[in-house]
Amino acid sequence: MFRPLEEEKVFKDPVHHAVYVQDDTIWKLINTPEFQRLRRIRQLGTTYLTFHGAEHSRFSHSLGVYEITRKIINQFERNRYKDWPQEEKLVSLCASLLHDVGHGPFSHAIEHVFRTDHEKWTCDIILGDTAIHRVLKEVDEDFPRRVADVIRKTYDKPIVVSLVSSQMDADRMDYLLRDAYFTGVNYGSFDLDRILRVLRPHQGTIVVKESGMHAVEAYLMARYQMYWQVYFHPVTRSSDILLRQIFRRAGELYRDGYRFGFLLPQLRQLFEGALTVADYLSLDDSTVQTAFGQWIREDDPLLADLCRRFLNRCLYKYITLESCDSSFIDELKREWARIGLDPEYHLEMDTPVDLPYDVYKPGTGTGGKDKPPILLLDEKDGIAEISGRSEIIRSIAGLHQGKYYIYYPQEELLKRASVLRRETRELFHL
Amino acid sequence: MFRPLEEEKVFKDPVHHAVYVQDDTIWKLINTPEFQRLRRIRQLGTTYLTFHGAEHSRFSHSLGVYEITRKIINQFERNRYKDWPQEEKLVSLCASLLHDVGHGPFSHAIEHVFRTDHEKWTCDIILGDTAIHRVLKEVDEDFPRRVADVIRKTYDKPIVVSLVSSQMDADRMDYLLRDAYFTGVNYGSFDLDRILRVLRPHQGTIVVKESGMHAVEAYLMARYQMYWQVYFHPVTRSSDILLRQIFRRAGELYRDGYRFGFLLPQLRQLFEGALTVADYLSLDDSTVQTAFGQWIREDDPLLADLCRRFLNRCLYKYITLESCDSSFIDELKREWARIGLDPEYHLEMDTPVDLPYDVYKPGTGTGGKDKPPILLLDEKDGIAEISGRSEIIRSIAGLHQGKYYIYYPQEELLKRASVLRRETRELFHL
Amino acid sequence: MFRPLEEEKVFKDPVHHAVYVQDDTIWKLINTPEFQRLRRIRQLGTTYLTFHGAEHSRFSHSLGVYEITRKIINQFERNRYKDWPQEEKLVSLCASLLHDVGHGPFSHAIEHVFRTDHEKWTCDIILGDTAIHRVLKEVDEDFPRRVADVIRKTYDKPIVVSLVSSQMDADRMDYLLRDAYFTGVNYGSFDLDRILRVLRPHQGTIVVKESGMHAVEAYLMARYQMYWQVYFHPVTRSSDILLRQIFRRAGELYRDGYRFGFLLPQLRQLFEGALTVADYLSLDDSTVQTAFGQWIREDDPLLADLCRRFLNRCLYKYITLESCDSSFIDELKREWARIGLDPEYHLEMDTPVDLPYDVYKPGTGTGGKDKPPILLLDEKDGIAEISGRSEIIRSIAGLHQGKYYIYYPQEELLKRASVLRRETRELFHL
Amino acid sequence: MFRPLEEEKVFKDPVHHAVYVQDDTIWKLINTPEFQRLRRIRQLGTTYLTFHGAEHSRFSHSLGVYEITRKIINQFERNRYKDWPQEEKLVSLCASLLHDVGHGPFSHAIEHVFRTDHEKWTCDIILGDTAIHRVLKEVDEDFPRRVADVIRKTYDKPIVVSLVSSQMDADRMDYLLRDAYFTGVNYGSFDLDRILRVLRPHQGTIVVKESGMHAVEAYLMARYQMYWQVYFHPVTRSSDILLRQIFRRAGELYRDGYRFGFLLPQLRQLFEGALTVADYLSLDDSTVQTAFGQWIREDDPLLADLCRRFLNRCLYKYITLESCDSSFIDELKREWARIGLDPEYHLEMDTPVDLPYDVYKPGTGTGGKDKPPILLLDEKDGIAEISGRSEIIRSIAGLHQGKYYIYYPQEELLKRASVLRRETRELFHL
Repeated sequence: MFRPLEEEKVFKDPVHHAVYVQDDTIWKLINTPEFQRLRRIRQLGTTYLTFHGAEHSRFSHSLGVYEITRKIINQFERNRYKDWPQEEKLVSLCASLLHDVGHGPFSHAIEHVFRTDHEKWTCDIILGDTAIHRVLKEVDEDFPRRVADVIRKTYDKPIVVSLVSSQMDADRMDYLLRDAYFTGVNYGSFDLDRILRVLRPHQGTIVVKESGMHAVEAYLMARYQMYWQVYFHPVTRSSDILLRQIFRRAGELYRDGYRFGFLLPQLRQLFEGALTVADYLSLDDSTVQTAFGQWIREDDPLLADLCRRFLNRCLYKYITLESCDSSFIDELKREWARIGLDPEYHLEMDTPVDLPYDVYKPGTGTGGKDKPPILLLDEKDGIAEISGRSEIIRSIAGLHQGKYYIYYPQEELLKRASVLRRETRELFHL
Repeated sequence: MFRPLEEEKVFKDPVHHAVYVQDDTIWKLINTPEFQRLRRIRQLGTTYLTFHGAEHSRFSHSLGVYEITRKIINQFERNRYKDWPQEEKLVSLCASLLHDVGHGPFSHAIEHVFRTDHEKWTCDIILGDTAIHRVLKEVDEDFPRRVADVIRKTYDKPIVVSLVSSQMDADRMDYLLRDAYFTGVNYGSFDLDRILRVLRPHQGTIVVKESGMHAVEAYLMARYQMYWQVYFHPVTRSSDILLRQIFRRAGELYRDGYRFGFLLPQLRQLFEGALTVADYLSLDDSTVQTAFGQWIREDDPLLADLCRRFLNRCLYKYITLESCDSSFIDELKREWARIGLDPEYHLEMDTPVDLPYDVYKPGTGTGGKDKPPILLLDEKDGIAEISGRSEIIRSIAGLHQGKYYIYYPQEELLKRASVLRRETRELFHL
Repeated sequence: MFRPLEEEKVFKDPVHHAVYVQDDTIWKLINTPEFQRLRRIRQLGTTYLTFHGAEHSRFSHSLGVYEITRKIINQFERNRYKDWPQEEKLVSLCASLLHDVGHGPFSHAIEHVFRTDHEKWTCDIILGDTAIHRVLKEVDEDFPRRVADVIRKTYDKPIVVSLVSSQMDADRMDYLLRDAYFTGVNYGSFDLDRILRVLRPHQGTIVVKESGMHAVEAYLMARYQMYWQVYFHPVTRSSDILLRQIFRRAGELYRDGYRFGFLLPQLRQLFEGALTVADYLSLDDSTVQTAFGQWIREDDPLLADLCRRFLNRCLYKYITLESCDSSFIDELKREWARIGLDPEYHLEMDTPVDLPYDVYKPGTGTGGKDKPPILLLDEKDGIAEISGRSEIIRSIAGLHQGKYYIYYPQEELLKRASVLRRETRELFHL
Repeated sequence: MFRPLEEEKVFKDPVHHAVYVQDDTIWKLINTPEFQRLRRIRQLGTTYLTFHGAEHSRFSHSLGVYEITRKIINQFERNRYKDWPQEEKLVSLCASLLHDVGHGPFSHAIEHVFRTDHEKWTCDIILGDTAIHRVLKEVDEDFPRRVADVIRKTYDKPIVVSLVSSQMDADRMDYLLRDAYFTGVNYGSFDLDRILRVLRPHQGTIVVKESGMHAVEAYLMARYQMYWQVYFHPVTRSSDILLRQIFRRAGELYRDGYRFGFLLPQLRQLFEGALTVADYLSLDDSTVQTAFGQWIREDDPLLADLCRRFLNRCLYKYITLESCDSSFIDELKREWARIGLDPEYHLEMDTPVDLPYDVYKPGTGTGGKDKPPILLLDEKDGIAEISGRSEIIRSIAGLHQGKYYIYYPQEELLKRASVLRRETRELFHL
C-alpha cells in the first residue's frame, strides 16, 4: 500500500528544517488543486494585523502536521513496537496532511457567521468529486472513506485518531511551534524531539513514557502562553470581530434584497446558503480581500466603513472589565442607540476562555470523545492520567482566566463624548 | 522636528525581535492605508511556490529596513560622530520606511510587462494626494519632496542616500536576513550587530571600520548564496514566467478587443495604460489572484490554462544548458510551431545573472550612481574601496555564473514526443 | 563617577550576542587576577558530567549578569524614570559583575563540607588586599564598602539590592538563559527583551508593568523547568555527592593524621580551617581536579576509589522513592554494615526541593529579606504581589515536588547481592 | 559485529540536539577513563581567553564527530547505496569517536614544544594497555589495529578514511558548527542537514551530488570565516605564544638542572622525554594550569612572570605588518637585547596562513594523501573536482592572506621607550 517514490522529495521548512515525502500518494495529494488552495488561506486568520510576521498559510502548517506524524510513526517502526498497527501508516499520513483542507477564508470567521463547519467540508472534499478523492481512490476503493473517518474521529482504530486529534497531537505540536516561529514570540517553544522520543503506542492509544512528564509539562505551558499572548490577544479579537461584522452585514443586505455593486458568484452562493464543494474551494483569503476592496465603494455606509476599517487596519478599540453581565451590555446598547451609534455593530463583548489542559472526568462528559486525556506509562503501575502525577498540570488544568473585553469604534464615540453619561465616559476613559 | 511619542510603540518582529517606533510621524505613516496595503504584497513574489515559508509581505520588510536604519543612526548619535548630520534623522527614517511603498502585485512581474517602475510609483505616492503625503507635509511643506529625493537618489546629502541605497544598505541587510528566516535556508545569515557596530559616517558617506572587513565579506557571501539558492532558483523563475505570461496574454487579449467575463476596474486601467495613483493602490496580490481565479473560466484557452497552472502550481519544467544562442532558440521555436505548440508561450529562455559585488571602476560607469562601492576606513591610509583590501571580495566581484534555462510545458511536449526531432527528444530527456 | 572609556569594549557573548563595557572601572575589574580566576570555576559544578555542554564558567555568567544590569539601567535612564537614583549606576554595575567572585571550586561542594560561605568570601575579596579592592578604591575611599553592602543586602538603597538579588534579578535571568544555552535544553527560554521592557523603578524597588504579567509567568515556568530538568537532575546530584564525599574523606584523613602523598598547600590550609583570602583565591576547579588525579594513588582505598570514580565518571546509581524516613535509612545502613559496605559513604539519601516562586507571607518570615516578591504595577490599583493577580503563579507557588533518591555503588552492591535481604534486593532491582 | 543496546542512549547536545548511541561497543568506549579524560582538554586550547564562551572540551566534539558519521552512514544504509560497504559501520564509528583521544593539554601547545604528535598518541592509546584497547578487542582480536589504521590513513578501504579525514569530513563539520556555537560568532554556520543529504558513496570514496555544490560553497566560506575570525585571531595567537613560552622555559630550566619548587611527576617525564601512555593520559588542562599556578612562585623570574601573565590574562600586545623578513626581526632582537629585554621571549613573530580549500594538483604533491579534494558527482559527466565547477571555490582556493604579527610585552617596552630608536617607537605606537 505504501508506494515509495523513486527519490524522496524534500521541502525546506523553517520550523522542521525539512519535510520528507517518501510515498507517491502523499506527493500526488500535495499537488492537487484543493491542497494548493491552502496556500491562499492564512493559518492564523487576522492575527497578522497584530503580529505582522503571522502571514503563514494552512499549506505550511499541513505539511508540518504530516511531517510530525511521519516522525512519530518512523520512531514506532524503528523500535518495532508491537502495539503500533503498521498497516495504518498511509491512512495516518493522509489524514494528517488533509485534516485542514476544508478550512475557509480567514479560517473561522465564515464558520461563525454562516454556521458551516470546516471539518464537514474536509470530509466533503475527501469524499466528493475532487482530485484529492481520485488520488485516494487509487490506493483502494474504500480508502477515501477511511481517511474521512479518521478526521471525523469514527475510525475503528482509535490509535490513528489520537495521532491526528488529541490533547497532544501532531496538529497542536506543529501549530504551537509554527505560530511561535512566525509571530516571533518565544513562549511557544518546547522540545519536540524529546516529546517524539517519549511517545509509545500502547493498547490502542498513544501514551507518554513516564520520564517524559516534564516535557509534557513544558508543552502545556507553551500552549498556555500561546493562547494568552497570541491567540486570545485582544487586538486580534478586534480584527476578528470586524471580519465577522462584514460578513454579517453583507448577509443581511443580501437577504434584504440590496443590490451589490460587486459580488463574486461564490459569495452569492454563500449568502444563498447554496455552496457546492466547487464554490467553497473557490473561496479563499484573496477573494474575500478583493471583495472587501470593492465594497469600500458600496452604497451601504456601514458595510463600506467596515471594509475600509478592515483593509486599512482601523480597528475597534477595547476596554477591559473584570466582570460583566448581560444587563450591563443591554444598558450600554440602549445608550449607544440614544446617541446615534449602531447597537448591533458598534458594541461587541468578548470573553476568550481556554482550559490549558482538560482533565478527563468520567461521567461529566468533559474531556470526552473530542479531547482524550494525556496518559503516562509507568513500568510499575501501568497507565495514569497525567494530571494525577504532575502537580503543575493539576494546578493549571482548571485555569480559564476569563476577562471581559468591550469593543467599540473610538472615533465615533469620541465625537459623541459630550452626550454620554458620566459613568460611561469614565469607563471608556473619555 | 523629531516629535517623540509619549510612550514608544513596539512591534514584535521575528527577525529583529522588536521594531521600536519613537516618533509620531513614523507612527502615523505606518497607519496610513497606503502603507497598510503593503501587507497585501508578498516580499518575494512567487517564491512561496518554491519555498513554502516565503509568504511574508513588504509590510514586514519595510518595518525591518526602518529598524536597521534607526539602529545605525542611534549608534551614530550615541557616539556623537561629527560627520553625521543629526538634522537628517527623520528624513532618513521616513525614506527607509517608505522606500517600497510603490511596489505592485507580486513585486516585479507587472513592471516587466507594463513597463512601469515601482520607484516612480513610490515617489508619486509620496508626492500625490495620499494620506502619506499629508502626514509628511505636517512636518514641513517641503518634507515630502525631500523624502522623495532620497528615494530617487537626488537628495543633496549623499550620506542619507547611502543609508537607504548602496551595496550594503539597510534594505539589503533586512531582506537577506528576513528572506533567509522565512524560507528557512540558513545561507543568508551574517552578523548584523557586528556590521552595525563598524559603520561610520565619514565625509558625506558611510564607511566601514577596517576591522569590520571580515564581517563585510560574510555579508557578501550570504548575499551570493541567497541569490543562487533562493532568488535565482529555477523553480521560482518558472512561476515568475507564468505570471508574466498571464499579464502578457491578458494585455494582448484586451488590445485585441476580447471581452473578459470578469475584469476588475483597476486591471482595465492597467491594460489601458491609464492607471492613476488611486487605481495603482487598489492593485495587490489578492486582486490579481482573484482575477486569475475567475479567468480560469475565460473562453481564451491559453489564458485559462495559464491561470489554472499558476493557481494550482502546475509549473513549466526546465532543462539546463551551459551555453545557448538566439539561433538555437529560433530553431526550437520553429519546431514548437511545427508540432502545434505556441512558440511565444510554450518556450521561454532565462539566464539569471548577478554580480555579488560591483567594484567601482572609474570611467566605465559601472558601480556608478546606483551602486556606490563599499569603502573601508583605515586609520593610517584613509579610505579604500573594499575589493582592494579583501582578496575574497576581489575574487567574487567578477563572478556571474550565467547558466541557461529553457522552460516548457512538459505534459504538452510529452504528448507530442513522437513527432519531435531525435536531438530535441534527447535534450528534453523524453 | 562614571568614567567612560575612550572607545567602548565589546565581548562576543553567545547568550547576549555582545557584552558592552563603557566604563573604565568595569574594564579594570574584569582584568584583575581575582576576576580572571572565575574562568577556572565552572558555573554549574559537576553538571557537565550529566550535560556535556555545561562546561561554561562563572566568568561568562558574571559578564552576563553585568550586561543585563547595564541594560536595565539603560532603559531606566533612557526613559528618565524619576524613581531611579542615577548616582547608583556604577555601584550597581560593580556589584552585579562581582557578585560571584567569591565562589570556590565546583561552586557549592566545598561550602557544604567545610561550612564556608561564598558570599562572605566575595565581601572579603572586595574589602581585602586585592586588585579588585584597589580598583574600587580608586573611585572613592568608601566605594568598596558600598559594593560589599549591596552584595550582603544591607545597602541603604534597597532598589540597588533588588536589581542584583531578588526573585527575578539579573543573576537569575542570566543563569537560566545561559545554562539552557550550554546544556542545550530549551526549557529555560523566556523573552528577556520583553521582561527588560516592563521593569520599572518604583518607590525604592523594582516592579513589573501589569502588561508584563504573562512574561513573568513564562520566566517562572522556565525556572521551574530548569530546576527539575537540569539543576536537580538525579545524575548531577550523584556527581555532587561524590565530590562532597571526597572532601569529607580527605578532611577526615587529615584530622586523623594521615600523611598524604600529594597535598597542595592551599588544600592543607583548607583542612586546617586556616584559609587566607590569597589561599582561597588559589583554589579553583583545576587544582581540585589535579589533586584528585594524584589521590587516585593514595594508600587510603576509600579516598582513592572516590577520586577514580569522579575523574572516570563511575557515578553512584540511584533508586527513587515516593517517601522515605530516617528509620528506613538507618535500617539500610545497618544492612550495609552487615554486608561489608561503608554505611557512611556507600549510601546517601537526597531529596531536592524547590519553590518555583516564594509568595511573601507577612508574619511567617518566608519570602522575607532574602527573596522579595515580584510586584506588579497597575495604573489603577497601584502595587500588587504577582501571585494575587496570576492564577498560574498562585498555582505553582506552593509546589515543591520532593521525591527521595538513594545513591549507592552498584558494582559493590551487585557483588554482595546474595547476602542482601529479599526486600532490599527487590528495592534495588537486583 | 554491531551489537545493539537494549535501549538507545541519548546525550543532549546543544549543537546536534541529541547524540544517539545504539551500539554496545560505542557505549563502553565513551565510558572508558581515556575517553572521559577528554572532558579535561579544551577543544580550542587558549581561545577562551579571547572568546569567553569557548570553554567546551574535546569530549563534546568527539561525540559530535561520532554523531555526524552515524548520520552519514544511516543515510547510506537507508538508501541502500551499493557502494557503501555495510560491514565498515562499526570501525567507522569507533574511529570517528576516538580520533582525538590522543590530544594533550591545550591541544597543540605541547606538540610544538616537545615535538610529540597527537595522532601517534591516539594510535598508542588504541593499541596499548588501555581500557579502550580492551573494549575494541572484545569485537575482534584485530579490531584495534583496524581502528588505528583508519586514523593513520592506511586503512585498506579509503572510503572509511575519507569519512573521518578529508577536506569535508565529520571532524571539520562538527568543529565549525560547535566552535561557532560556543564562541557565539555566527560566521561558521552552514546547512549540515543539506550537506548530509547530498553525500554519496561512490567507487571507494565519498562524493557530493552535483545539486549540492552551493551547500559545499557555503561550507567552505564558513570555514574561511572561522579561520580568520576565530582560529587565527591575533589575541588567541598571543595566548598560544605565552603557553608555548612557558613550556619552552620550563624545559630549558629542567635541562639546565634547575630545581623546581613544584613538579608533577608526569611533567618531569615530559621534560625527560620519557612519557609513557599512562603518564600522557594523566596530563590534561587541569594539571597544566595547576602547575602554572604553583610556578608563579618559582625563583626563575621569567618562568614566574610567564605563568602569572597566562593565568591572569596579561597577554603580549601585537603590531601588524604587511610584510616582514628575518633580517628585520634580527635587527629588532638586537635592539631588544640592547635595551635589556629578552630577545628570545619578549619578541615573537607570527604569520597565520590557511588555504580555504586545497585543490588537488597531480604531480605537485599538494592536496595529496592528507587532504583528498572534494568531488562532485554529475549524472552526465561523472566525477569532477569541485573547483573545476565552482567559480567561487576556484577563486578562494588560492587565498592565504598572510599578515605578519609581532608580539611583545607592552609594559616592559613602555618602560624603556626612551631608549628605543625613533623608528621602533613609531612602529610600536609609543
